[in-house]
Amino acid sequence: MSRLLLINPNISDSVSDLIRAEAQRSASANTSVEVLTAPFGVAYIETRFEALIGAYATAQLAAEHHERFDAVIVAAFGDPGLAGLREALPCPVTGLTEAALASACLLGHRFSIVAISQRIRAWYRETVEACGLASRLASIRGLDEPLADIGSVQADQGDRLVALAERCVADDGAEVIVLAGAPLAGLARSLRGRLPVPAVDGVSSAVRHAESLIALQPGRAARGSFAPPPAKPHRGLPAAIARLLDRPVS
Amino acid sequence: MSRLLLINPNISDSVSDLIRAEAQRSASANTSVEVLTAPFGVAYIETRFEALIGAYATAQLAAEHHERFDAVIVAAFGDPGLAGLREALPCPVTGLTEAALASACLLGHRFSIVAISQRIRAWYRETVEACGLASRLASIRGLDEPLADIGSVQADQGDRLVALAERCVADDGAEVIVLAGAPLAGLARSLRGRLPVPAVDGVSSAVRHAESLIALQPGRAARGSFAPPPAKPHRGLPAAIARLLDRPVS
Amino acid sequence: MSRLLLINPNISDSVSDLIRAEAQRSASANTSVEVLTAPFGVAYIETRFEALIGAYATAQLAAEHHERFDAVIVAAFGDPGLAGLREALPCPVTGLTEAALASACLLGHRFSIVAISQRIRAWYRETVEACGLASRLASIRGLDEPLADIGSVQADQGDRLVALAERCVADDGAEVIVLAGAPLAGLARSLRGRLPVPAVDGVSSAVRHAESLIALQPGRAARGSFAPPPAKPHRGLPAAIARLLDRPVS
Amino acid sequence: MSRLLLINPNISDSVSDLIRAEAQRSASANTSVEVLTAPFGVAYIETRFEALIGAYATAQLAAEHHERFDAVIVAAFGDPGLAGLREALPCPVTGLTEAALASACLLGHRFSIVAISQRIRAWYRETVEACGLASRLASIRGLDEPLADIGSVQADQGDRLVALAERCVADDGAEVIVLAGAPLAGLARSLRGRLPVPAVDGVSSAVRHAESLIALQPGRAARGSFAPPPAKPHRGLPAAIARLLDRPVS
Amino acid sequence: MSRLLLINPNISDSVSDLIRAEAQRSASANTSVEVLTAPFGVAYIETRFEALIGAYATAQLAAEHHERFDAVIVAAFGDPGLAGLREALPCPVTGLTEAALASACLLGHRFSIVAISQRIRAWYRETVEACGLASRLASIRGLDEPLADIGSVQADQGDRLVALAERCVADDGAEVIVLAGAPLAGLARSLRGRLPVPAVDGVSSAVRHAESLIALQPGRAARGSFAPPPAKPHRGLPAAIARLLDRPVS
Amino acid sequence: MSRLLLINPNISDSVSDLIRAEAQRSASANTSVEVLTAPFGVAYIETRFEALIGAYATAQLAAEHHERFDAVIVAAFGDPGLAGLREALPCPVTGLTEAALASACLLGHRFSIVAISQRIRAWYRETVEACGLASRLASIRGLDEPLADIGSVQADQGDRLVALAERCVADDGAEVIVLAGAPLAGLARSLRGRLPVPAVDGVSSAVRHAESLIALQPGRAARGSFAPPPAKPHRGLPAAIARLLDRPVS
Repeated sequence: MSRLLLINPNISDSVSDLIRAEAQRSASANTSVEVLTAPFGVAYIETRFEALIGAYATAQLAAEHHERFDAVIVAAFGDPGLAGLREALPCPVTGLTEAALASACLLGHRFSIVAISQRIRAWYRETVEACGLASRLASIRGLDEPLADIGSVQADQGDRLVALAERCVADDGAEVIVLAGAPLAGLARSLRGRLPVPAVDGVSSAVRHAESLIALQPGRAARGSFAPPPAKPHRGLPAAIARLLDRPVS
Repeated sequence: MSRLLLINPNISDSVSDLIRAEAQRSASANTSVEVLTAPFGVAYIETRFEALIGAYATAQLAAEHHERFDAVIVAAFGDPGLAGLREALPCPVTGLTEAALASACLLGHRFSIVAISQRIRAWYRETVEACGLASRLASIRGLDEPLADIGSVQADQGDRLVALAERCVADDGAEVIVLAGAPLAGLARSLRGRLPVPAVDGVSSAVRHAESLIALQPGRAARGSFAPPPAKPHRGLPAAIARLLDRPVS
Repeated sequence: MSRLLLINPNISDSVSDLIRAEAQRSASANTSVEVLTAPFGVAYIETRFEALIGAYATAQLAAEHHERFDAVIVAAFGDPGLAGLREALPCPVTGLTEAALASACLLGHRFSIVAISQRIRAWYRETVEACGLASRLASIRGLDEPLADIGSVQADQGDRLVALAERCVADDGAEVIVLAGAPLAGLARSLRGRLPVPAVDGVSSAVRHAESLIALQPGRAARGSFAPPPAKPHRGLPAAIARLLDRPVS
Repeated sequence: MSRLLLINPNISDSVSDLIRAEAQRSASANTSVEVLTAPFGVAYIETRFEALIGAYATAQLAAEHHERFDAVIVAAFGDPGLAGLREALPCPVTGLTEAALASACLLGHRFSIVAISQRIRAWYRETVEACGLASRLASIRGLDEPLADIGSVQADQGDRLVALAERCVADDGAEVIVLAGAPLAGLARSLRGRLPVPAVDGVSSAVRHAESLIALQPGRAARGSFAPPPAKPHRGLPAAIARLLDRPVS
Repeated sequence: MSRLLLINPNISDSVSDLIRAEAQRSASANTSVEVLTAPFGVAYIETRFEALIGAYATAQLAAEHHERFDAVIVAAFGDPGLAGLREALPCPVTGLTEAALASACLLGHRFSIVAISQRIRAWYRETVEACGLASRLASIRGLDEPLADIGSVQADQGDRLVALAERCVADDGAEVIVLAGAPLAGLARSLRGRLPVPAVDGVSSAVRHAESLIALQPGRAARGSFAPPPAKPHRGLPAAIARLLDRPVS
Repeated sequence: MSRLLLINPNISDSVSDLIRAEAQRSASANTSVEVLTAPFGVAYIETRFEALIGAYATAQLAAEHHERFDAVIVAAFGDPGLAGLREALPCPVTGLTEAALASACLLGHRFSIVAISQRIRAWYRETVEACGLASRLASIRGLDEPLADIGSVQADQGDRLVALAERCVADDGAEVIVLAGAPLAGLARSLRGRLPVPAVDGVSSAVRHAESLIALQPGRAARGSFAPPPAKPHRGLPAAIARLLDRPVS
């Protein structure tokens, strides 16, 4: 029995619902999923500044709740806070971007990302670069209109998203499509058979990879840069974060 | 019920036994695994020339047997033939290297590879480069003595392998260790708790990732460079390979 | 008259004192500097998790105080929160790392970083990579003992830091030394004449570059990914951060 | 007197004729050339799977015939099997891609590749990446119609190929054109004066570079990863390949 | 009081006038600037060959005049001779390209360069690559008509240059614009408010960065590859260059 | 009958003698070689500043003499002035570094450079980077003592140079050795059989590649960045250089 915690770094309950639904559809029979929504932040993350906020909200939720879970998933594309949480938490942690890219890399050599806005592309690009995978990125294409409703973007913009994916394949050389962002959770599933190349999304990838990490039991870092942060003075932090910083290095 | 075919591109039954044992330990309850051994080739692959031979042997076995399986795994580090089989087979295909690297990338930023010989390092390095992950490779270290018995290298050289991993962490900045090569299948499991950072191996990673790809059902490439090869004249090929080349593009 | 705000993302008043002293020594005659210390966080940042916390503390202080200043400096190596603040604030923003690297790039082709701990090296390396400057990084070397007092590390460890710098030049090919981290603020100045290659630190570099950005008046982004974040619903944020998100795009 | 063996990894005698004609035109007076055609395989290689087959066919022919020659040329773009043969054969080995890229790099900084199909571009791109020359690749453009006859593509599609080259120069910044693939052997020669930048092809480049390697007598690898593969058990291999594996390391 | 020497590597007095005017506008109150024009060379540099000539002319002027100055600026984009002068001169040296790129990197992640001709783009691109900043280069766009008068290009082509900058932002993802080349000196200033992202030019950036390097007093290289060239026999050199080569290593 | 001009950018006649001797040994029967020595400059080039001087001396000699030759070779490692001359001269031009690297790339995947001094390494490294081949560079090692006599370094330091090459293979993973610098011309030949991997030098490689470029007749650039520089005003240039700039674009 694996217990997964998915943390939506944004405040949108409608997006949390999409995440939960796709996580449950994707999870193995013996896996339970729980989704928490950030208590503070923005409706959806498109920028580095919003990601900074989401990272801190995620850290708080993770610090408070991780003990009941076998793995934690940062459930926003861009993976706000992921690398920090990987140091601090005793369990495996992954995020929608790195999980989707890991899936994409197992399906082809070059992938494109289809996203919900133009603005979001720079942040996604930098996330791919931080993963060291820029050489496998064919392109990032995004919708070019303001979103009427973040919770219904799949229904409202489905055909446009398919058209973007087709251009990625025809014009950019994409061999795999990554449908990016929690608001697109489940779209890869509902588009099955409509895209000319394999497509993955972040939620289903993250759920599956988290299960794999739990199963592989690779061990936790006791040395190196992903060992828990060295103990040192701190002040003014939420109690749960303070506990993470104080606990003895295993 | 997922059915996985693991193809050992080498002729060593003792290594196939190691692969099978670790695959069975790693697989989910509802997954069956079968291991086939190359009918021709060398005892274990250390060089580009041996990999070329192993790739063709793997292609033959895959062409003959894939129809009974949901996914195929190239069960040698270096992934001989993997990219070609991904084009030709209708099911997901992965290999020990790309699967282990995908796992490693979910556990830390920079990984080192511990391998069974000095000679093998150049081929592994080129495999990592071909995956576009050179920027995340901390180092590759290998045993520096001829192997007495490829099937018992784990028992014979266990302490030396641990020592190499520790140097990767202390001297090279490795945050994750990849124990590389089918002859080391299962070593990550048996060393649990003895290494200072998370460790993964190729067989368990490939089994888990293959299961994930089956579950995600990302779809098959109908366009782009991983679509099936265009039909064209051929001559003198094994019947199973000829069938793969002749079948209509889906 | 230029007014610079330096934000120490850590809680150490002793480090803020070092920052203030070096900023005042570095600033032009017509520049005023003010240093604020994070109200919450850790004593000094060595890890990605601590940087995540520092980024949020920095964002709060920047949001509350920026209006009185012509430029803002994130006064910790690693530049926690810098890219986000560059989007959100109407004035120039820089950080100790990017400023020190900009100086170093004007003095030689390859630079090394000398740092206060072993652990901190991975985070610095990733910061350099995020700046796109990995090809110019010769090495990162750090002290290998726990720090007795973060505020007196220069005095306590001066000779060891010089020895590290000399190894960077002799063994790693460094043509410039970056003395990294706010706790080393002023060390480049006090070591003048003792190092075999040019040396820079983050505080003095950031002060000078901030002055230059104020003077150049390059304009603010109205389009592209450093324009202010698009307005959208938010909840539960500190009032100053909320104001940043709400103000009309210029 | 230099004796060159060119191995066509494909089964098309018409392409072997093109290779032979251009090789003879390109060779020095005291060089003899012989072209062998793969006894099994496909009409021309566009995909990674077809390259895998061609590599093995090339290895068999090379193993059987190399002793009569001073150098061996893998006469298909993509260089199937080249790196492996460089380990195994006692004489210099080169391939159409690496030879053409070496020529191109002596004529300008960035080159484009003009190819016979759309599909082939991904494989060519990966070949350039494997050569470490991605930063010098301006673009790859290919014909976008099925080929009526692989042996007459130059005559049938000459104007279209010229137009592709001109777009590479005007739109992509190409400073050199590589006319890629054995079916285009001789085209660089027949287009002399019609292209706005220098143009090279693989066959003439490979013949000239092979002559140079024979003349330079750089010595054979006795150590490192291009030394002959270490002796080890093997089974079921063609006699000539087995002999290559068994011979004592020089 | 800082004294800056700007050397125009070209023979155009009209461009020297533009350089001088912008340098004076950009300099701090206590900085004096002097501009020297190359006694031999071409009207403006677009090619590698012309840069080679300009480098030597710059070296002669720098050798003759540097002693009266606190810093030297190579006042042509492409920075002809910069790295060599950094070795040979005892004072800080910078150039328009590296200075503009340093400014751009403090304002956004990806920059585009707007230039005065198509031909000049390759040389600029190679200059950016030599700075190790290719990953941050969004694009280089240039005017596509012959220049009527190099000294009045800003007035003649102002609208076209703005249009190029806008395409860099809209189509290429530029977050900062670099207005490149001494003939565009001052254009960033006169376009203030007309471009959608921050814009910088080389002269103002170089003046400010030179002032900063003077203020930071980072020290001179006594070891490593930017130390003065080792003394050795020479012949036939201009007296000032000979003196630079002969003086004892400090 | 091919006529090659080799230009020694340095003033050392003893090095010109080494160049001439190796060029004659390397050239085909129907090739004539002529070596010219720079009329001004330094004894041998170790630094960027010396390379700047050598580039201009080379340009003058090339402009004056190229018309009698079919190809020109810049006969110093680092290739001073090469890219500029490739634009300006109507015949093929190559240099010792790019030619040696082209040879090395045909013999193995990763090469090391063995050089005559420590200081020279940075300049060589930057030359390799400018060729886009940094990913194939295993290491650069140099002698660490002042040279008694540049013309007899091979005899004086032969054993030390061999020892450096062996360390490149054993410690750095070199698969090919490049013996770098005109003062080492002929050393690869005289060391035949003493090194564990193939070895090449610049002079023999450049002679052979120049012959190949003459034979391939790839055509000259009429467009793109290696076309002759556009005509424009110039002043004060040596007559031969002025003629190169003035002649009509072919």
